[in-house]
Amino acid sequence: MSRGLLITFEGPDGSGKTTQINLLKTYFENRGENVICVREPGGTSISEKIRAVILDNENEDMHPMCEALLYAASRAQLVHQVIKPSIENGDMVICDRFVESSIVYQGIGRGLGEDKIREINEAAVNGLKPDVTIMIMIPYEEGLKRKKKQRNLDRLENSGEEFHKKVYDGYVKIDQKYDTIKVINGDRNKMQVHKDVLDLIKKIILEKEGEI
Amino acid sequence: MSRGLLITFEGPDGSGKTTQINLLKTYFENRGENVICVREPGGTSISEKIRAVILDNENEDMHPMCEALLYAASRAQLVHQVIKPSIENGDMVICDRFVESSIVYQGIGRGLGEDKIREINEAAVNGLKPDVTIMIMIPYEEGLKRKKKQRNLDRLENSGEEFHKKVYDGYVKIDQKYDTIKVINGDRNKMQVHKDVLDLIKKIILEKEGEI
Repeated sequence: MSRGLLITFEGPDGSGKTTQINLLKTYFENRGENVICVREPGGTSISEKIRAVILDNENEDMHPMCEALLYAASRAQLVHQVIKPSIENGDMVICDRFVESSIVYQGIGRGLGEDKIREINEAAVNGLKPDVTIMIMIPYEEGLKRKKKQRNLDRLENSGEEFHKKVYDGYVKIDQKYDTIKVINGDRNKMQVHKDVLDLIKKIILEKEGEI
Repeated sequence: MSRGLLITFEGPDGSGKTTQINLLKTYFENRGENVICVREPGGTSISEKIRAVILDNENEDMHPMCEALLYAASRAQLVHQVIKPSIENGDMVICDRFVESSIVYQGIGRGLGEDKIREINEAAVNGLKPDVTIMIMIPYEEGLKRKKKQRNLDRLENSGEEFHKKVYDGYVKIDQKYDTIKVINGDRNKMQVHKDVLDLIKKIILEKEGEI
């Protein structure tokens, strides 16, 4: 395959995205692929500086629209500096959160509206679409339990239970709305989840190869 | 007057905006008005942190869209935290650069397109419009001469002559396009320029009082 893939992972906090990303990374590496893993917000030195502003607990009076635009700014830099060149180079790019996170966290969770957030992000990513968006879902109570075990929560994680319930409902809402999103049940053994992820990826690779 | 005014100043670097803002501030203070002067990007603690990322010469590989979204993020915070509450409080708000600067610097200067930048900023300011936008214009060569006297130029000021020529042409272009923008010749004695600014402001205050 000459062009690489952009695979994005979505899901509420505590759904096990990071574990699944690491397993997928190892799978690709064992196949001899170049793999680039990036996290959002962040992934470039400029985006990491923006991340620091977004997540700083000191910035508690940040307006939701400021927050949404900062996420989009970080994403624009990541897309143009890392993601687009890497895909063109034939690499596999795995992204921990992408546009759908903004739709859910800022559009639905903060109440700014899905359309407005999608518009801002269209500008940020300049038409780039993931080859697949894998959404790992777990029951709301399970995510809450896993989250409570964590320490040093950042400003977003500290946004309160009501916000996180809206985010959870937002994920449920968008997974029914866009058929580019593939939902996987994350409330199982990590290798069972990984198997489902691989089945999806293999199908997409076959489809892509069919296109050539 | 129960509601205050939002007065924004625009113009290429070196046009004398800051001098005119200070003169106008003194005028309002002498009339017993509350005056809030803000600069863009900046004007709140969060916006100043964003400003530091935008203007840092270390961030020379910042993508133009990242830059545009950072300006919009800084502006969203400023509008919601300072500008809107101050106007509602009856204060006079004077803003050194606003949406038109983004149209000219990022939309035209960086080539991202006027419409895309206007869309992002519509989201950022949530419908807020200045009561008047005063554009101080000087001949391109004069601005260049004044700029060369400055030291410690920031990342935007260091963007090269071709960029600044585009910005200049961009200002000329938009002043012919939007009749909410009032152009004043800045290539004169500062008190002559100030007189023209005051004539404009007095006219707007009279119009506003007529509306009540």
